[in-house]
Amino acid sequence: MNCLLCAFVAVLLVFSIGANTFQSRFSRSRFRSKINRKRNVTPLQSGHTYRTLYFDQKIDHFGFAQDQTFKNRYLVADQFWNQNGGPIFFYTGNEGDIELFCNSTGFMWDIAPQFNAMLVFAEHRFYGKSMPFGSESYKNKSVLNFLTSEQALADFTELISFIKSTIPGAAKSSVVAFGGSYGGMLSAWFRIKYPNIVVGSLAASAPIWQFTGITPCNSFYDVATATWARVSETCVANANKAYSTLEQIGADDAGLKFISSTFHLCDPLTSMADVYSFEDFLSEMYIDYAEGDYPYPASFLADLPAWPINEACKSLLTPLSGKPLLEALSKVTNLYFNYTGAAKCVDWKGDGGTASLRYLGWYYQSLFYSSQAREATLKNFWEAMLEGVRLVLEQGQKIKPTARELGLNYKTLGRYVALKRNSINIDNKQVHKRILNDEQEQMLADYLIQASRIYKD
Amino acid sequence: MNCLLCAFVAVLLVFSIGANTFQSRFSRSRFRSKINRKRNVTPLQSGHTYRTLYFDQKIDHFGFAQDQTFKNRYLVADQFWNQNGGPIFFYTGNEGDIELFCNSTGFMWDIAPQFNAMLVFAEHRFYGKSMPFGSESYKNKSVLNFLTSEQALADFTELISFIKSTIPGAAKSSVVAFGGSYGGMLSAWFRIKYPNIVVGSLAASAPIWQFTGITPCNSFYDVATATWARVSETCVANANKAYSTLEQIGADDAGLKFISSTFHLCDPLTSMADVYSFEDFLSEMYIDYAEGDYPYPASFLADLPAWPINEACKSLLTPLSGKPLLEALSKVTNLYFNYTGAAKCVDWKGDGGTASLRYLGWYYQSLFYSSQAREATLKNFWEAMLEGVRLVLEQGQKIKPTARELGLNYKTLGRYVALKRNSINIDNKQVHKRILNDEQEQMLADYLIQASRIYKD
Repeated sequence: MNCLLCAFVAVLLVFSIGANTFQSRFSRSRFRSKINRKRNVTPLQSGHTYRTLYFDQKIDHFGFAQDQTFKNRYLVADQFWNQNGGPIFFYTGNEGDIELFCNSTGFMWDIAPQFNAMLVFAEHRFYGKSMPFGSESYKNKSVLNFLTSEQALADFTELISFIKSTIPGAAKSSVVAFGGSYGGMLSAWFRIKYPNIVVGSLAASAPIWQFTGITPCNSFYDVATATWARVSETCVANANKAYSTLEQIGADDAGLKFISSTFHLCDPLTSMADVYSFEDFLSEMYIDYAEGDYPYPASFLADLPAWPINEACKSLLTPLSGKPLLEALSKVTNLYFNYTGAAKCVDWKGDGGTASLRYLGWYYQSLFYSSQAREATLKNFWEAMLEGVRLVLEQGQKIKPTARELGLNYKTLGRYVALKRNSINIDNKQVHKRILNDEQEQMLADYLIQASRIYKD
Repeated sequence: MNCLLCAFVAVLLVFSIGANTFQSRFSRSRFRSKINRKRNVTPLQSGHTYRTLYFDQKIDHFGFAQDQTFKNRYLVADQFWNQNGGPIFFYTGNEGDIELFCNSTGFMWDIAPQFNAMLVFAEHRFYGKSMPFGSESYKNKSVLNFLTSEQALADFTELISFIKSTIPGAAKSSVVAFGGSYGGMLSAWFRIKYPNIVVGSLAASAPIWQFTGITPCNSFYDVATATWARVSETCVANANKAYSTLEQIGADDAGLKFISSTFHLCDPLTSMADVYSFEDFLSEMYIDYAEGDYPYPASFLADLPAWPINEACKSLLTPLSGKPLLEALSKVTNLYFNYTGAAKCVDWKGDGGTASLRYLGWYYQSLFYSSQAREATLKNFWEAMLEGVRLVLEQGQKIKPTARELGLNYKTLGRYVALKRNSINIDNKQVHKRILNDEQEQMLADYLIQASRIYKD
């Protein structure tokens, strides 16, 4: 397969999917039993009630030469909030439309009544409707210059300050940050960089150790693969074997037609280059499956049943080869791209069903944020990243990734999260199940106790 | 007197002088006894041995559109350093030539042998020889855009990383930050913003509470005045009375000549406007006296004897008026501007003997950094600040002080210093005497123990 592009596509999700399991301090079995013991699995509810608001946000928080503002979207749900001291649970938006995260973050909605909390979901700049330069926000490097995590964290501080000064009763509300994946990193960093703004944070599946020299370069792929292997090693073996099978069968026109037909492709494959691209598309799908492997029906990246990988692997539980392997695999693509039955064909040239995550911005951010991007051993990958950015910036302006890489700013901050400086990293599966373990529940309560103490000083 | 200009001049020093006393947790009497008990007062030694080095520093740490570098000066003294685990004591340079601070910070030199520490003095960008755009560094707002404390802190992280990666043995050295006044604020913020880079910090006379709504607007003046009043209330009363006396006597030509002659002014006063300017010059001098009120002979802002305010007040210990008052006051100016006897006249139109502090940059920074600058009640002062910046930027480009003010980034971080999150704020007088009290000494030792534990993890 085309490893350059594969790596390129895959890394874009490194912070989207995060480290589903390797951050966990809990063994899976221990975890499962805790889930079952604590509460029943209920489907994620969408259609939550919230208000959509906009805040005039400075484009540049670290200088004054650029002194314009933009409309920063945020969502507020205060129906559970106790105006007399109830906390604010603040979602540090990540790389996508904030409504997607708002509706997928059942955890915060579940615990809000218990803590009488106001929920605030802040959209990350350059995503969703929070475009600093409108439709020209991705135009060139002088506008993309302001797409950084540092600016995003500063946005959050300004927004919190605004909320506290404008909503009666909010001034004394303590703020706890929540976030998942890249947003979880933001959440963890937020607590450390602005301990005066947030009293604590919960980071879900945040790959806070995902830096060169700390975490192996390929750990992302390992994690994604492990998510499938937990269901069936044979399923993984079949998926792996399918790459060479696709290349063998796709070597002639008849084979290309077979593949196009079997997988219900909107655009038929017409060359080996197409086969390679389709393989990349499959790789991305496997990762999206892992990311969307909720234990209940959900619509995060695609409409899927509960435990979709269990479902997907059902057709791949025995060793297969040749056309039967591809026919079995087509059930996996059909499940992912047409679970609702609404799709007429599989759009392998499209966005893979994750348009809401705004890959344009994430292509760009991951160049600066991923450890992989800086891994000298993957020279080809590095080139692919640069190429990707070139494609994103249609003008082809050269961007040297010499901006402040995350190393010094965030790299070893993981220690401080680990040392429990009021920032917890929890497993995504926990969030999916919307539970805290006893220790975490205690810690969250402690935040709020501590917070009320601080504000009383 | 001209209050607009007076306030203008005075605030420029707010972080230079800092809060000599009001931050102190210790009463002066208790303090003195400790000093005398612990060690003899010895004159500050200059002529320390260090190497002068330069580091290629990125101009912008928070974006990539500006990807140039500049030569960032730093000084290294490793003659006391134990290469096997000795710490690095890192001076977070403030608004001036780093050599000035290096030679005036006896405290670090004194304790370096005790801790087998390497000393590093980092020059703050836009001061001394660390000019991001050479001689054009103050040219306009697009270059001054990069003169912020956030960029300075990021400079320090990059420099420390460079030192650790290039000096054999330094990689595992823990780093403790030191700084005074504005540099002390940097030092305190450094520990909080980059706990992964520095294990602790000592901030001397750092006005970390000097924000609107936390500390009264005029506390700076109160502190400066109190430093004089401790010596003699009559001395202060005479100094205050001198303003109206100068205006009365300076109302005619003969009076202007008398003043010019009595004070040995290089440029004679020729108008009431000159009288007002000379009064501002005196105000600044009182503040500089307070800032340089070392208990031993020193050359920080000017060559002065030990306890220079005690010396200055000797001629003002009885109530005076008229010409005798001005004659007595001239001894105060002579002491400050000609203690060595080398000056031919008093250059009241010059820089007040503090050229090394590079007021150009500080004029500019204080617009963003001082709480006074944002105090709506001092409208005139605010206008004066803007006017000052206009003068600094000769082109008269409009600068709107809408960049990220320190409020959200730093304002309430004082709590965390106070809560002893590995950052101590100590009294300048302590630094002058180059002692730590027992608690502080213990805390410094604890930093290093903690540091070695962290690095062993």
